[in-house]
Amino acid sequence: MSRSFSSSAVANSIRAKVMLYSQYGQPDQVLRCVSHELPSSPKGKEVLLQTIACPINPSDINQIQGVYPSRPELKVQYGQSEPVAVGGNEGLFKVLAVGDQVSGLKEGDWVIPSNVNFGTWRSHVLSEESALMKMEKTISANQAATIAVNPSSAYQMLTLFEELKPGDWFIQNGGNSQVGRSAIQIGKKLGLNSISIVRNRDNLKELVDELTALGATKVITEEENASKEFGKTIAEWTNGKPIKLALNCVGGDNCTNMVRKLGQDGTLVTYGGMSMKPVTIPTTLFIFKNITAKGFWVSANIKRIPGSRENTIKAVQKMMEDGDLVDVKMYENPVSADASEEEVYQAFQKALANSNKGKQLVVFS
Amino acid sequence: MSRSFSSSAVANSIRAKVMLYSQYGQPDQVLRCVSHELPSSPKGKEVLLQTIACPINPSDINQIQGVYPSRPELKVQYGQSEPVAVGGNEGLFKVLAVGDQVSGLKEGDWVIPSNVNFGTWRSHVLSEESALMKMEKTISANQAATIAVNPSSAYQMLTLFEELKPGDWFIQNGGNSQVGRSAIQIGKKLGLNSISIVRNRDNLKELVDELTALGATKVITEEENASKEFGKTIAEWTNGKPIKLALNCVGGDNCTNMVRKLGQDGTLVTYGGMSMKPVTIPTTLFIFKNITAKGFWVSANIKRIPGSRENTIKAVQKMMEDGDLVDVKMYENPVSADASEEEVYQAFQKALANSNKGKQLVVFS
Repeated sequence: MSRSFSSSAVANSIRAKVMLYSQYGQPDQVLRCVSHELPSSPKGKEVLLQTIACPINPSDINQIQGVYPSRPELKVQYGQSEPVAVGGNEGLFKVLAVGDQVSGLKEGDWVIPSNVNFGTWRSHVLSEESALMKMEKTISANQAATIAVNPSSAYQMLTLFEELKPGDWFIQNGGNSQVGRSAIQIGKKLGLNSISIVRNRDNLKELVDELTALGATKVITEEENASKEFGKTIAEWTNGKPIKLALNCVGGDNCTNMVRKLGQDGTLVTYGGMSMKPVTIPTTLFIFKNITAKGFWVSANIKRIPGSRENTIKAVQKMMEDGDLVDVKMYENPVSADASEEEVYQAFQKALANSNKGKQLVVFS
Repeated sequence: MSRSFSSSAVANSIRAKVMLYSQYGQPDQVLRCVSHELPSSPKGKEVLLQTIACPINPSDINQIQGVYPSRPELKVQYGQSEPVAVGGNEGLFKVLAVGDQVSGLKEGDWVIPSNVNFGTWRSHVLSEESALMKMEKTISANQAATIAVNPSSAYQMLTLFEELKPGDWFIQNGGNSQVGRSAIQIGKKLGLNSISIVRNRDNLKELVDELTALGATKVITEEENASKEFGKTIAEWTNGKPIKLALNCVGGDNCTNMVRKLGQDGTLVTYGGMSMKPVTIPTTLFIFKNITAKGFWVSANIKRIPGSRENTIKAVQKMMEDGDLVDVKMYENPVSADASEEEVYQAFQKALANSNKGKQLVVFS
């Protein structure tokens, strides 16, 4: 069907643009944008949504590359002859219309997907009400569009592994990452002291000041983390109190040196491996310091701990409302929800191409 | 005091020989044997003991080398001018006499220390009753003298970390070690299936047959453990059932390759590092397979889990009584309890020198 036909039928249907792929590979090679018609009057429990904003997360890219364990099923849909899946797992949508059996949502409401593999990279979608979680408009659209992955990960890692009490210490690498910045702020709100490890750089003082302003207790470089002597400085900071939790998204020597800073019975939580090197822990830390090493994956916790996603998002949303968790810097790639397939495609490709320069959002208007 | 004086005073006192050290270092350089008088009629809650047998454990050597976190306090005792500590942590003793307030022990009873750092390398000792645990004479003296460390470690690792049910699988490296052999037998008694990794050798079939006779379900070489293809063979053995627990006393690549065999949510328990290499675990196993890595130290569990030592020893003793856990091969170094300091010293030095050839016991008669 042509776009002109779609426009002429606007009263009865909406032309949704969808970023999909039929084989795994680099997103710029395997993603394409196709259109399909959606009824403008949903039935029963159906909810018609228009996308407000959706981020490019590293896990979205890994998923399309085929290297991510959790993947949407490839199936024949959207008028395609071969099985396809839609990109993206996180995003904010507004309700355009609801079916007559929808009880908890109305036109104009904000919603996010309540599970992974929703396929958020599209202009419109028809969803069951049960697959959606309502978001109050007490936070910014960008915050709501990105609440489920990075700040939720930080919140869960700080609350699910160790019973940290105000005054307790945690340490993390990747202190300048989105999760790292969230952990700094959430930690401060929980009364925790934090040590964040960052890469050395020309404008280090600027970054240290920035993270300190967010609530970081201490910011150290990878070189300081690697130095045995620096352990004494940390012991002075903590006044000998054991560091109970370490959050790792780097691996390799950075992680090994961080684990050495943990106190007796401490826990290392690994949620990423940016160095592409494995987690290496001296035997003595396991045997004599009784360190525990675990992994964290926010997507798995949705199934493993019922209610964890909702409870986490509510807690994080409250911190955002109260100003305890401030907007991270995001780069907006705007496009109209009525734009052509090519325009939507270009907006996503631009966001993908720049995704290593900072958090990219495709924003529909 | 001379030995002749001691002999003449046998009615009132006993001449105890003690292997002690006043500074950390190699046992053959820092250990010496000294004598001191013990009253032959203990008072109150005291119990007079003569050593039956005591093993040389690797941790005893590490303790004397000063590289072991749990160490006896060096204090001025046994007529020495400088602070000293007594070697050894495990051993079996017989009661020679008890004080009038001792209620649970009588002459001839067998006892083992109920805590670490008892200092077992000696001919006689005067102890409080509360520091002793009575052993029934339903197992051999050698079994009783070595029950608290190796088989107890195997039992606790198989029961404290994962709720293993009959038919479940575990995997271990160091399959030919004392702990490994205990784990094979205890695992079989608990209805568990085991995969034991051993080093390749000329007489491999002989070792495989020996471990299989002990109850090993499967015995594989380090090369097979390292091979990706071999994972399929293991999956056939387990019929796709996830391996829930891995016991590690080696570290390095051996351990990494073993962890890859664990199923979803599996646990790696590290209790040794014979390769002198750390524990290295791929990030993806933590994040996507939800592997947990922990450490195990039987000495720490005595304090951490009250009653664990007693319960464990009773359970292991029952398996030994029933013939489910057979005597491991031990090398006896005999010496008389009345022997000279030099003779006792030589017996221990011989045992220490041969401790890499198999489990060495100093046996007093």
